[in-house]
Amino acid sequence: MNQHLHPDRLFPAAEPLRSISRELYDSITALPIISPHGHTDPSWFAKNQRFSDPSALFLTPDHYVLRLLRSRGLSYDDLGVPRKDGKPVADPQSAWRLLAANYHLFAGTPSRLWIDHSLQFAFGIETPLNSETADKIYQQIAARLGDADLLPLALLDRANVEVIATTEFALDPLTHHSTMLERGMIGRVRTTYRPDDVTDPSRPAIVENLHRFAALTGEDISSWAGLINAHRQRRQTFRQFGAVATDHGVPNAMTADLPMSEKQTLLDKILSGQHDAADAQLFRAQMLTEMAMLSVEDGMVMQIHAGSARNTDPLLFAERGADLGADIPTATDYGNGLRPLLGRFGNEPNLRLLMFVLDETTYARELAPMAGYWPSLMIGPPWWFHDSPQGIRRYLDQVVETAGFYNLAGFNDDTRALLSIPARHDVWRREVCGFLARWVAEHRLSKEAARDIAGHLSYQAAKDAYRIS
Amino acid sequence: MNQHLHPDRLFPAAEPLRSISRELYDSITALPIISPHGHTDPSWFAKNQRFSDPSALFLTPDHYVLRLLRSRGLSYDDLGVPRKDGKPVADPQSAWRLLAANYHLFAGTPSRLWIDHSLQFAFGIETPLNSETADKIYQQIAARLGDADLLPLALLDRANVEVIATTEFALDPLTHHSTMLERGMIGRVRTTYRPDDVTDPSRPAIVENLHRFAALTGEDISSWAGLINAHRQRRQTFRQFGAVATDHGVPNAMTADLPMSEKQTLLDKILSGQHDAADAQLFRAQMLTEMAMLSVEDGMVMQIHAGSARNTDPLLFAERGADLGADIPTATDYGNGLRPLLGRFGNEPNLRLLMFVLDETTYARELAPMAGYWPSLMIGPPWWFHDSPQGIRRYLDQVVETAGFYNLAGFNDDTRALLSIPARHDVWRREVCGFLARWVAEHRLSKEAARDIAGHLSYQAAKDAYRIS
Amino acid sequence: MNQHLHPDRLFPAAEPLRSISRELYDSITALPIISPHGHTDPSWFAKNQRFSDPSALFLTPDHYVLRLLRSRGLSYDDLGVPRKDGKPVADPQSAWRLLAANYHLFAGTPSRLWIDHSLQFAFGIETPLNSETADKIYQQIAARLGDADLLPLALLDRANVEVIATTEFALDPLTHHSTMLERGMIGRVRTTYRPDDVTDPSRPAIVENLHRFAALTGEDISSWAGLINAHRQRRQTFRQFGAVATDHGVPNAMTADLPMSEKQTLLDKILSGQHDAADAQLFRAQMLTEMAMLSVEDGMVMQIHAGSARNTDPLLFAERGADLGADIPTATDYGNGLRPLLGRFGNEPNLRLLMFVLDETTYARELAPMAGYWPSLMIGPPWWFHDSPQGIRRYLDQVVETAGFYNLAGFNDDTRALLSIPARHDVWRREVCGFLARWVAEHRLSKEAARDIAGHLSYQAAKDAYRIS
Repeated sequence: MNQHLHPDRLFPAAEPLRSISRELYDSITALPIISPHGHTDPSWFAKNQRFSDPSALFLTPDHYVLRLLRSRGLSYDDLGVPRKDGKPVADPQSAWRLLAANYHLFAGTPSRLWIDHSLQFAFGIETPLNSETADKIYQQIAARLGDADLLPLALLDRANVEVIATTEFALDPLTHHSTMLERGMIGRVRTTYRPDDVTDPSRPAIVENLHRFAALTGEDISSWAGLINAHRQRRQTFRQFGAVATDHGVPNAMTADLPMSEKQTLLDKILSGQHDAADAQLFRAQMLTEMAMLSVEDGMVMQIHAGSARNTDPLLFAERGADLGADIPTATDYGNGLRPLLGRFGNEPNLRLLMFVLDETTYARELAPMAGYWPSLMIGPPWWFHDSPQGIRRYLDQVVETAGFYNLAGFNDDTRALLSIPARHDVWRREVCGFLARWVAEHRLSKEAARDIAGHLSYQAAKDAYRIS
Repeated sequence: MNQHLHPDRLFPAAEPLRSISRELYDSITALPIISPHGHTDPSWFAKNQRFSDPSALFLTPDHYVLRLLRSRGLSYDDLGVPRKDGKPVADPQSAWRLLAANYHLFAGTPSRLWIDHSLQFAFGIETPLNSETADKIYQQIAARLGDADLLPLALLDRANVEVIATTEFALDPLTHHSTMLERGMIGRVRTTYRPDDVTDPSRPAIVENLHRFAALTGEDISSWAGLINAHRQRRQTFRQFGAVATDHGVPNAMTADLPMSEKQTLLDKILSGQHDAADAQLFRAQMLTEMAMLSVEDGMVMQIHAGSARNTDPLLFAERGADLGADIPTATDYGNGLRPLLGRFGNEPNLRLLMFVLDETTYARELAPMAGYWPSLMIGPPWWFHDSPQGIRRYLDQVVETAGFYNLAGFNDDTRALLSIPARHDVWRREVCGFLARWVAEHRLSKEAARDIAGHLSYQAAKDAYRIS
Repeated sequence: MNQHLHPDRLFPAAEPLRSISRELYDSITALPIISPHGHTDPSWFAKNQRFSDPSALFLTPDHYVLRLLRSRGLSYDDLGVPRKDGKPVADPQSAWRLLAANYHLFAGTPSRLWIDHSLQFAFGIETPLNSETADKIYQQIAARLGDADLLPLALLDRANVEVIATTEFALDPLTHHSTMLERGMIGRVRTTYRPDDVTDPSRPAIVENLHRFAALTGEDISSWAGLINAHRQRRQTFRQFGAVATDHGVPNAMTADLPMSEKQTLLDKILSGQHDAADAQLFRAQMLTEMAMLSVEDGMVMQIHAGSARNTDPLLFAERGADLGADIPTATDYGNGLRPLLGRFGNEPNLRLLMFVLDETTYARELAPMAGYWPSLMIGPPWWFHDSPQGIRRYLDQVVETAGFYNLAGFNDDTRALLSIPARHDVWRREVCGFLARWVAEHRLSKEAARDIAGHLSYQAAKDAYRIS
C-alpha cells in the first residue's frame, strides 16, 4: 500500500505518543472543514461542471508541483503550462507522464502527501504513481471525472466542507457569486475582499484600475475621502456576497499613519502616474491603515499576507505570467512595520487582524509577543511553504508558549487545488494531534484540555477568528 | 491531580529518555538556587512584611499573565491594573475571579507551569484553578499570607535560595540594601548596577538625571572624564552592597569606540538637550564600551539585555506606564554591534560580558561562534519569552555544539514574581536534564559527563559566570 | 569504552527509530567518500610525507579546537599557534597536554566526535583523552606517524576516498597538482578555482594581484573583456588539473548585472587604487555574475560560500593572521542578493550554482523556495558551524519539504584536517539515516525510498552536483 495512506501517518512513532495522537485524532475526524481563505475558482461552484482532465486537476494549476519539476530541469512547455504567445505546449497526458516519471522527486514534500491523499479521497486510487502506473491512473481518473460525485459541489459535500471562501479583487464583477446568491449558496461559499488591484501602485494598470474603481462605485477617487468611500462601499457589496474578511497581499508589513495633506499629495502623485517605488510603498503602507479603519467600522476581518517577492524570474513572467513558482519569501519586520497601524487602532474591539507569515524567524521573536498582547491581533496558520508537517511543527513550537493556543486562527488551506483541501486540513489536524500528544505525554496538558484544543484548532478557531456564525 | 505537578513533567516521554532524565534530575534537586539577575523588590527582604493579597502576588505585577488576558479582550481596569489618573480599577478578588475564569487561555504557556508550581510550593494547593475553584483558592491563599513561612525571607529559605540579586538604577538611594548591610544580609542579597537612568538619552529626564548623578557623586559630569569617574565611583558604592554585576537594557547591541573629542561633543549635546535619536543611539553605544572599560578595571560582570522595543502601545503607556506587556523584541545584530567594544577590550582577561537574547536567530549564527571564540563573552540563559520549555530546548539545541556547555552562564529567573523563582529554576533544571538525557541515549555524552553538566548548569555555572565566591 | 564510538551513536534512541536507522546505515557504509570541497594541503598528496607530530595533526591547524580553548581563557601561545613576529610558542607536547586537560570543554561539540573518531580510525585509540592519558596517547600517535598506513595517500585509501578536491587561488602555481598530473593522480585529487585573490578588492594586494594575473595569463586585465578572458583562460588551466568547480568566498550574497561602461569604470577605479568599500562590494557582486557567465560557457560548477565576517579580532589578525577562529557569520539575504545573477543566467541549463549557508534563517525562508524553483540552483550541505548533528537536523528539517531531497548537493567536509574527513562524513551519514528513519516510522517515506535517498545523499548526490563522472 502507499505508505502515505497509513492510518497512523504523521503521528510520532514512539509510544505512548502514537496512541495519544490517535485518540485525539479520532475525537476530531468528524468535524466539518472551515476553509476561510483560499483561491478556488468560484465558477466551479456556480456552474458545477466537470473538470476537464487529470492534469488540469493535479498539475497545471499547482505551482508547488510545477516549480519542483522545473527545478530539476523539466520545461514548462513539456509540462503543459500555457504560454502568453499561444505557442503549443504538451498535451495533458504527456504532461501527466512526465509528472509520474519524476514523482520520486516529491519524496518528503507535502505535495506528495496531498496528491496521494487526493487520489485516494476522490478516486479511490491507492497505487503509487510512477512511470509504470502513469497511463492506467490517468485513465482511471479521466473515466471518473464526469461522475456525479466528482462535480465540484459533490466534492465539497464529500469533504464535509461547511464554509469555503474564495478571493476576489475589488474590481471583480462577482458574477459567479451573484449566481450563487440567487441559488441560496452564499454563506457556504463566500467571497473575500482583496483590493490589491486598487491599492498597489506597483501594478502597471493602477491608474486605469483606480478610474474603473471610481466608475464602479460612483465615488470621486481623486480625493482621499472619496477613495476611502469607494472602498467603504465596495466592502459593503462584497459583504452581500458573504464576505467576512478582507485580504491584502503585500511585499512587507510596513504600515503608515500620515496626516491628511500627505495622503492627498501621495494620491495625486499616483493618479498622475509620477510615483516611484518609495511612493508605491508608502501608499500600500497607508492603505493598510485605512483598511484597518474600515474594519473598525464594518467588522470585516483583516488578513495580511506579507513577505513574498513576486515574479522574481523575469523570463518566466514574460513567457507565462504570475503564480508559477518564482515568488520567493523575504525577511519581514512585523514589529516596526505594524507599529503605526496598531498604535492607531490596535486596541479597537472591532478590529481583527490576522497575520500570515513566510518568515518563520518572526514567529517567536515578534508575532507571538504581539499576538499575546494586542487584543486585535491573531496569528494566521502556517502559510504557503510552511503548510507542511515540519512547517506546522515549527509553527506550534514557536508560537504557542507566548501567544497561547487561543490567539491562533485555526487552519487555512489557501489553495487553488480543490482536491487538496481535505488533504491539507488532514495534515494540519494530524500535526496538531501529534503536537498535543507530545505535551500530554510530558504532563504539560491534560488529555481533556488537549482534546478541547484539538477540536478548537481543527474547526471552531477558524469560525471564531473569521467571525463566521 | 494537576497534570503540571506530575513528578516526571517536562521529561521526554519515551524510554530510555525518561529514566535517564529522572536519574539526572534526582542528582541535582538538592542544589541551592543562585539567582544572579532579577527584579524582586529589595524592600521585601529588608522589611520582611507579608504580601497583601493573592492578586498582588500572582496577577498585577506579572506582565506575562496580564498581557495574555488583555490579548483575549479583557481590560486592564477589570484586572485591577492601577491607572496613572487614579481612577478606580477592579478590587483584587474580582480580578482574581477573571484570572480563574480565563485560566484555560494559559494552556501551553510557561505562566501556567509557574503559577501551578507556585501554588503547590507556597500553599500546598494542587487543585486546578478555574471559575469553580476561584474563591476557595483565593481564600486559602489569603488566609496563609500572614504565616511566618510565607514572609519573604522564609520563602527564600524554603526555596533554598543561596544568593539573589536585585537590580537598581544608578540614582537609586539603595535604602533597603543599606538596611540589609546593617543586618549582615548583603552577600545573600545583592544589588546590581543598572545605569540606564544616566546612559539612555531617550529618557525624558536624562539631563536632570545626569545632574543628580553629579550631585550624588561629587563629579563634574560635564566633562567626559568626570562622567566616567562618576560611574567609577558609583560602581564602587554598589559593590559595597554586594553588586558583582552591571546590567544594561538597550534596544539593540550597537557599541562604539569614538575618539575623546567626539565623545565630549556628544555629551555636550546631550546636556544641552539638543540631541536627536541618532545621538541618543550613539551615546548608548559609546557608554557600553565605557562600561566594558570600567569592568576591566573593577572586575564587575557586564550584562547586556538587548533587543526589546519598549512601550510600543502609546495608549497603554499613557494610561498606566511601563512593563505591562507592550515590549516587543526586534531583530538584533550582535556581530556588527559588539565589534567596536570587543575589538577594544574583548581579549582582556578581566572582562566578562554576558549577552541576553530575544532574537533566537542569533544563537547559532552569531552568539555561539562569538562566545566560542572571545574569552570575555558568555551567553546568558534563554531570556524573557524564551524562558520556557520549548525556548530552553531551542536555546540548547542552537548554542551548545558551537559554544560548548562551559560558555553558558547557567540560569537567571529575571522575575518580579518572588514565588515564581523556584518554579522557573525547576523548569530550567528539568529541561537541562531532558536535553542531556537525549544526548546520553544517543551516545553523545557519558552519563557521568551529563551529571557533571547538569550540576554545573543548575548551580555552579551561575556562580562562576558572576564571579560569586 | 568511549561513548562516542558506540555503534549506534547519533541514532534516535527510541524504537522503532533506532532499528530503522541502523538498517539504513548498514546499507550505505560501504559507499566511497566523495569530498568535492575542502582545504587539505595538496602537498600531502603530491609528496606523501609523514605528519610531524600529534599536535600538528589534531590541534594547531584546527580552528574549531583552538577557538574553543581560547574562549575559556587559554592562550594561543600556550597552544603552540605560530606568531607573525616569530617569538617562541609552546612545543607540541605541552600544547597537547593543554588540549587533553581541557578536553571536557568539548563535551557536546562536533570537534569531540571528530577527534574521538579520528583517534580510533587512524590509530585504534579508544581511550578517552584527559590529563591522565595525555602523554600516553601522544606517544602512541607519535610512534605511528611514520608507518606506511599513516601516510596521506594510505589514509585516503583506508578512508575509501574516491575523489577529493583541494582549493587554490587563481594565482596559485599549482605545483603539487602538476606533480600529481605527471603521476596520473588527477581525477582522484582535483583542484578548485577560487579566484578571491583577484576578485576581492578589499584585499590589500588586489592591484598587485591583478597585475600578476595579467602576467600569468598574458591578458590585458585593464579592459573588462581582458579581465574576463584572463579568468576564462585560468579556469581552463585549472580544469587540466581536475577542477570541476569554482569557489567564491564572499561576505554576503550580493550580485550585480551592470552595463559594460559601468563595469569598466569600476575596474579603472580598482586598478588605480582609488576604490572605497562600496566599490569593492560592487566589484565582488559583478564578478559573481561574470563567473556565472563563464560557468555557462565551460560547465564548471559554481560554489558560493557567503556570509562570514572575516578576521573580526584585530589583535589576533595582527599577531597571527587569518583562519584562527575570529570569523563570525552574519545575516545574509539570498533572495535579493542573487536576483541580478539569476535574472540573467538562472535558467541556463549549463549553470549549476551551489549555495553554502551560515545563516540558517535562510534555509526555509529563501533557499529552499529558490532551489525548488531555479533549475540552476542547489543547496550545499550544512556548512562550518552547522556541520554537526543538530546542525544537520535543522538543515534537513528546513530544506527538504520545499526543495525536496534531490536539490541538495550531498555532503562536503570542507576541512583542513585530513583525519576528520571520514569522521565528518560518518556524522552526516548517521544523521541522514536518523532523519529518514523518523520519516519512515511516521509513514512519510517507504523504507525503499529511504534507502535510495540515504545512498544518494551519502555518495551519488555529490558526484551529480559536481558533475564528476
